[in-house]
Amino acid sequence: MALTASVRVCAIFGRFADPRVAESLESLLPHLSGRGITVLACEAVGAVAGAAVVEVVSEEQLAARAELVIAIGGDGTLLYAARLVRKRQVPLLGINRGRLGFLTDVMPQDVIRCVDAALDGDCEIDHRPLLATTLVDTGATPVEGLALNDIVVQKLATGSMIDFETRINGRYVNTHAGDGVVIASATGSTAYALSCGGPIVEPGLDVLVIAPVCPHTLSDRPIVVSARSTIEIRLLERPDCRGQVVCDGFVLGDVAPGHSIRVQLSSDTISLLHPPGYDYFRSLRAKLRWGRGDDDRPR
Amino acid sequence: MALTASVRVCAIFGRFADPRVAESLESLLPHLSGRGITVLACEAVGAVAGAAVVEVVSEEQLAARAELVIAIGGDGTLLYAARLVRKRQVPLLGINRGRLGFLTDVMPQDVIRCVDAALDGDCEIDHRPLLATTLVDTGATPVEGLALNDIVVQKLATGSMIDFETRINGRYVNTHAGDGVVIASATGSTAYALSCGGPIVEPGLDVLVIAPVCPHTLSDRPIVVSARSTIEIRLLERPDCRGQVVCDGFVLGDVAPGHSIRVQLSSDTISLLHPPGYDYFRSLRAKLRWGRGDDDRPR
Amino acid sequence: MALTASVRVCAIFGRFADPRVAESLESLLPHLSGRGITVLACEAVGAVAGAAVVEVVSEEQLAARAELVIAIGGDGTLLYAARLVRKRQVPLLGINRGRLGFLTDVMPQDVIRCVDAALDGDCEIDHRPLLATTLVDTGATPVEGLALNDIVVQKLATGSMIDFETRINGRYVNTHAGDGVVIASATGSTAYALSCGGPIVEPGLDVLVIAPVCPHTLSDRPIVVSARSTIEIRLLERPDCRGQVVCDGFVLGDVAPGHSIRVQLSSDTISLLHPPGYDYFRSLRAKLRWGRGDDDRPR
Amino acid sequence: MALTASVRVCAIFGRFADPRVAESLESLLPHLSGRGITVLACEAVGAVAGAAVVEVVSEEQLAARAELVIAIGGDGTLLYAARLVRKRQVPLLGINRGRLGFLTDVMPQDVIRCVDAALDGDCEIDHRPLLATTLVDTGATPVEGLALNDIVVQKLATGSMIDFETRINGRYVNTHAGDGVVIASATGSTAYALSCGGPIVEPGLDVLVIAPVCPHTLSDRPIVVSARSTIEIRLLERPDCRGQVVCDGFVLGDVAPGHSIRVQLSSDTISLLHPPGYDYFRSLRAKLRWGRGDDDRPR
Repeated sequence: MALTASVRVCAIFGRFADPRVAESLESLLPHLSGRGITVLACEAVGAVAGAAVVEVVSEEQLAARAELVIAIGGDGTLLYAARLVRKRQVPLLGINRGRLGFLTDVMPQDVIRCVDAALDGDCEIDHRPLLATTLVDTGATPVEGLALNDIVVQKLATGSMIDFETRINGRYVNTHAGDGVVIASATGSTAYALSCGGPIVEPGLDVLVIAPVCPHTLSDRPIVVSARSTIEIRLLERPDCRGQVVCDGFVLGDVAPGHSIRVQLSSDTISLLHPPGYDYFRSLRAKLRWGRGDDDRPR
Repeated sequence: MALTASVRVCAIFGRFADPRVAESLESLLPHLSGRGITVLACEAVGAVAGAAVVEVVSEEQLAARAELVIAIGGDGTLLYAARLVRKRQVPLLGINRGRLGFLTDVMPQDVIRCVDAALDGDCEIDHRPLLATTLVDTGATPVEGLALNDIVVQKLATGSMIDFETRINGRYVNTHAGDGVVIASATGSTAYALSCGGPIVEPGLDVLVIAPVCPHTLSDRPIVVSARSTIEIRLLERPDCRGQVVCDGFVLGDVAPGHSIRVQLSSDTISLLHPPGYDYFRSLRAKLRWGRGDDDRPR
Repeated sequence: MALTASVRVCAIFGRFADPRVAESLESLLPHLSGRGITVLACEAVGAVAGAAVVEVVSEEQLAARAELVIAIGGDGTLLYAARLVRKRQVPLLGINRGRLGFLTDVMPQDVIRCVDAALDGDCEIDHRPLLATTLVDTGATPVEGLALNDIVVQKLATGSMIDFETRINGRYVNTHAGDGVVIASATGSTAYALSCGGPIVEPGLDVLVIAPVCPHTLSDRPIVVSARSTIEIRLLERPDCRGQVVCDGFVLGDVAPGHSIRVQLSSDTISLLHPPGYDYFRSLRAKLRWGRGDDDRPR
Repeated sequence: MALTASVRVCAIFGRFADPRVAESLESLLPHLSGRGITVLACEAVGAVAGAAVVEVVSEEQLAARAELVIAIGGDGTLLYAARLVRKRQVPLLGINRGRLGFLTDVMPQDVIRCVDAALDGDCEIDHRPLLATTLVDTGATPVEGLALNDIVVQKLATGSMIDFETRINGRYVNTHAGDGVVIASATGSTAYALSCGGPIVEPGLDVLVIAPVCPHTLSDRPIVVSARSTIEIRLLERPDCRGQVVCDGFVLGDVAPGHSIRVQLSSDTISLLHPPGYDYFRSLRAKLRWGRGDDDRPR
C-alpha cells in the first residue's frame, strides 16, 4: 500500500493511561480532528482533549480500516501495532514516549509536524521484513509466529539452562548450552540481540543475526547469516531441557526436549514511516549515548 | 567439624537413574561396604551392586547423621547436597558425572582413590562462604535464601526486562534495565556470572561479583566489591517490572515493583574436599578448554 | 582463471626452515615431481627430499608463471602468497602447519590427497573479495593497500590511544577513542575482528564488519555494513593522536592527526581451493573448540 | 606524610599551553598567591595571570620541596606527577580539564573551593598502592617500573600478536596469544583494563586484575587475584614474538622471546585527595554515562 495524501482513517495505539502518552494525545487528537481525520482505537482514551473524536472498534475492524497507524510509547507499542496491521502493510509512525527506541523515532516535541508529514505523504517509507517461525516436531499442529525484531528460544524461569543444536539450511553448526539464543533481523539487531553481544546491522542488509544468550560455552559468538537461510534450533533430548519461544517479546509457546523451531524470512513486511531529516546513525548515537553531552556533531 | 579418619557414616547424592551415576555406584558401594562404612541416601539407588548396604532415610536424618557427603553428578547435585548439610558443615566430595564443573572435581576414574583419601583424612579442606539473601519490603514475612554460587534477580519468563536499582552499603550505584543481575561469590564467579561476562575470581578472595545479565545499558559492567558489603537490589515502581529471585538455581520467590532483596555473606560456610594434587588452575584450563588438545602443560 | 587439470607449474610458499613445513615438503615435493609438475619458490627449500626439483625464481617470475599456489604454514603464509599472485587470481591451496586457521584448511595428513584434487580440478573454488584502502589527506601521494582479511587503524606502540571519526558513504557515524578500529571482510571476520568482539560472518555475504579495538567508549559495538560501502576513518586533530594502517598484518604506513583512510571493496578477488568434503562450520567448530573432545558430531 | 593546614609549597602540573589548562590557572595562580603559597612548576606557565608567582625548578627540586601537587588536565597528567613525587607521598589533587577521568575528579568550576579544602586539610586522603614490575631473564640488568593504574605487556606496532604464559605465585595458569595482557590495580580497573573487558573493582580492595587484550583464545577471561600475588608473564620462545612493557602508558622496555616480567605490589603508595562530598559511584555514573540525562538521582 503506497502512502498518499488521501489518508482519511488513522488508528492510534498506546497505553493511554500513561501521563506522557496522554500528553501527546492532548495535542494530537484535536489536530487530527481539525484535519477531518477519523481516528480509531481499540480502547477508549479517557479524559483527554479531543477524546470524543476517537471511535473505539475491535482489533479486526481497526486492522481492516486504518490507513495510517500512530503508535505512541516505546518500541513494544509499535511492535504490537505492527503485528495487528501487517496483512495490509499499513504504514506505521512511532512517537517516542518511553524508553528511547529505534522504531518510535519521532520525539514528543515533533508530533504535529511529523504526523502532518505522514498525512501529506512527505515521509520516507522504510519496508522492513518480518521473521516467521514454526514450532515443529512437537507431535501437535505446528504453531506459527511472526516478529519484526527477533525470535528467541530461552530457558523457562525455573533457572535451568537449555542445550540446543543449531542448523543453517540443514547443515549442522553447533551444540551449545546457555540461557537461549536470539535470531534477529537487521531491524532487531539493535534490540535484544545487542544486549546479548550481537553486532549492530545496518537496516536494509539482507542478513540475520544468531546470538547466544549468556552462553555456557565461552567461545560461542554471534553469527551473521544470509536472510535467505532457514535456521533450525532443536532442544536436546535431556531431562529438564525445557524452553519457550518468544516473538518480539510475546510468548509463542513452549518447547520440550527434541522439539525444534524453524525460522525464515516471512513474505510479509511492515512499512515504517520516517519524518524528513531522519538519520539512522543519529538515532544510533542518541540511543547508545555516543555523542558527548550537547555536542553530537563531528569534530 | 574437622575431618578425621573416623568417618563411619557417609551420605550419597545423585540422580541414581542416570547410567553414569549408576556406574560410579557399582564400584563405590561395595568399596564403602568393605570399609565398614554406613551409607545413607534420601532415596533408593535401584539395582546397583552394593545397593543393599544403602540405608534410605529422610533428609533431616541424613543431615543429622552424615559425616561425609559424596555428590555424584554435576555441580547442581553438589549444590543441592550442600544446602542440606550446611548447618553441620559436613565435608563434601564431588564426583563429576555431568557437565564439567568446578565443585565436582573428582574424575570418574579416580573415585576409589579420592574417596579413600577423604575417609583417611588426606584431603585438603576448602571452606567456602555462603551468600544469604532476604526479600524485603514485600509486606509479607521476609523470605530468606542461601547460596554457594550465586543469587540472581531475573525477569520472569514472560519476556519483559526488569528495571532495578543497586545500592552497596546503602550508597546508590546505578539504575539499570536488563534480564537481571547476578550476585556471585568468588566460588560462583566461574558459574553463571562467567556466562554473563563476569571475571574469574580466585577462590578464597574476600570479594563478591555483581554482574548484569544481558544489560540494556551497554556500558554496564561487572563490579567487584568487598565480601563484607551489603548489596541491595530494588525493582523500580513500574508496571510489568516483575522478577524472581534464584539461589544456586533454585527459585526462592517472586519480586514485584518496589520490592528489594538484600545480599550479605552468611555466617555459614561449606567444606569442600579436594583430593591430593588438586590444582585450581588446572581445573580452570580443563573447563575453559585452555589447554591445546592433549598438551596441557606449559611450553 | 579457471582451474583445470592442465596445471603444469605450481608455486610453494612457507617458512621452509620450520621442521613441520619441511616435513610436509618431504612427501609433497617427490609427489609433484612424479606428476611432472614444475615447482617454483622464491627461496631455496634446503635439505629436503625432492628439493632438487624446486626452481628458485623472483617474486615477479613466480607471480607470472604459477598456475597453482600451495601455501604451507599458517594463515599469514597464505595471506602473503595471496598478495603476490592476486593480479592473475592464481588458485591457492593452504596446508595447515601453524596455528589453526581458516585459510589453510588442509590438514597435514591430507596433503597428497588434496594436492591431487587441486591438480585434477576436483576442488571447490571459493572466490573471496579483497579490501582496498587509500591513505588520503596526508599532503603526499596517496598510498594504497589491499587485504583479504582486514584493514586496521591502530595506535602506535607508544601507548596513547587514538581518537577517530567514522563515516560510511560520507555520513557521519561516530567519534570514538581506543586502541583502533578493524575493517574486516566476511573472510576476515574470523581473524582479528573476532578477538575484538566482532561477529562471525558467513563467507560469501556481501558485508563488512567495523569493529572497535579496546574501545574507550564502552557502548561502542561492531557494526555490519554493506560491502558496497565506502568507509572513512579520520584521526582527530589532537596532539599525540598518531596511528598506523595495517593490511592483513603488514604495516602500510602511518597516519597523523587530520589524516584519513578510505576503505572499499577492491575489484580484485583471490581464489581459495577447498578439497572435496570441505565444511565451513566444521572448520569453525574445530577452530573455536566447539566440539566436545573427540565427539564433534551432532547429538 | 599527613596533610595539614600548614602547606606552604605547592607544585602545579599540566600542559600549560592547552587553553583549558590556562583558563584554570588564570583563577588558581592569583588565589594561591593571595594565600601566600609558593608555587613550583617544572616549566614556565606562559602569559597567564599570576604566572609571575610560579618558580620554575628541576623535577628533583620540585619532588623534594612540594607539599601538595595540583595536576590539571587528564589522568595522564596526574599519573606523570604521581611518579615524580611518590617517594615522599606528596598528596595529589587532580583538576579535570581533559577526558573525563577517575583520578582528576575535581571539576573546573570547583577549583578554588577544592584547592582551599586541600590547603585547609579538609580533604579525604585516599592512599592507593602502586604496582612494581621487573623485566627479568633478559641477560641484562633487570629494569624496574612502577605504575598506579596498570602494567601492560603488548605486541609491538608491527602487528604480530604475542604468545605468553602466565604464572601466579609460581603456579602455571595458561598459555595464551593475543595483543597482550594488562595487570591492573583496583585503581586501574576503570582505566585500560575496562576497555579490555575487565571488571570495575571498588577502590581499596586488595586485589589485582589480569585482563587479556584482544585474546586469540576466545574463552580467555579476566582473572581477579589477591594483591599479594606475584604475577609472571613470559613470552614464548617463538620467532616474531616480541613485545613491550608499558607502565601507566609510559614504555618501560622491550621483551623478546623467553623474557619475563614479574609484577607485585610496591611498598610505595600515592595519596589522592578527594574534596568533601566525593562519591566514587557518582564518578562512575558520570564517566560511564549511566545517569539518564540531567537526572542522575535514584528513582
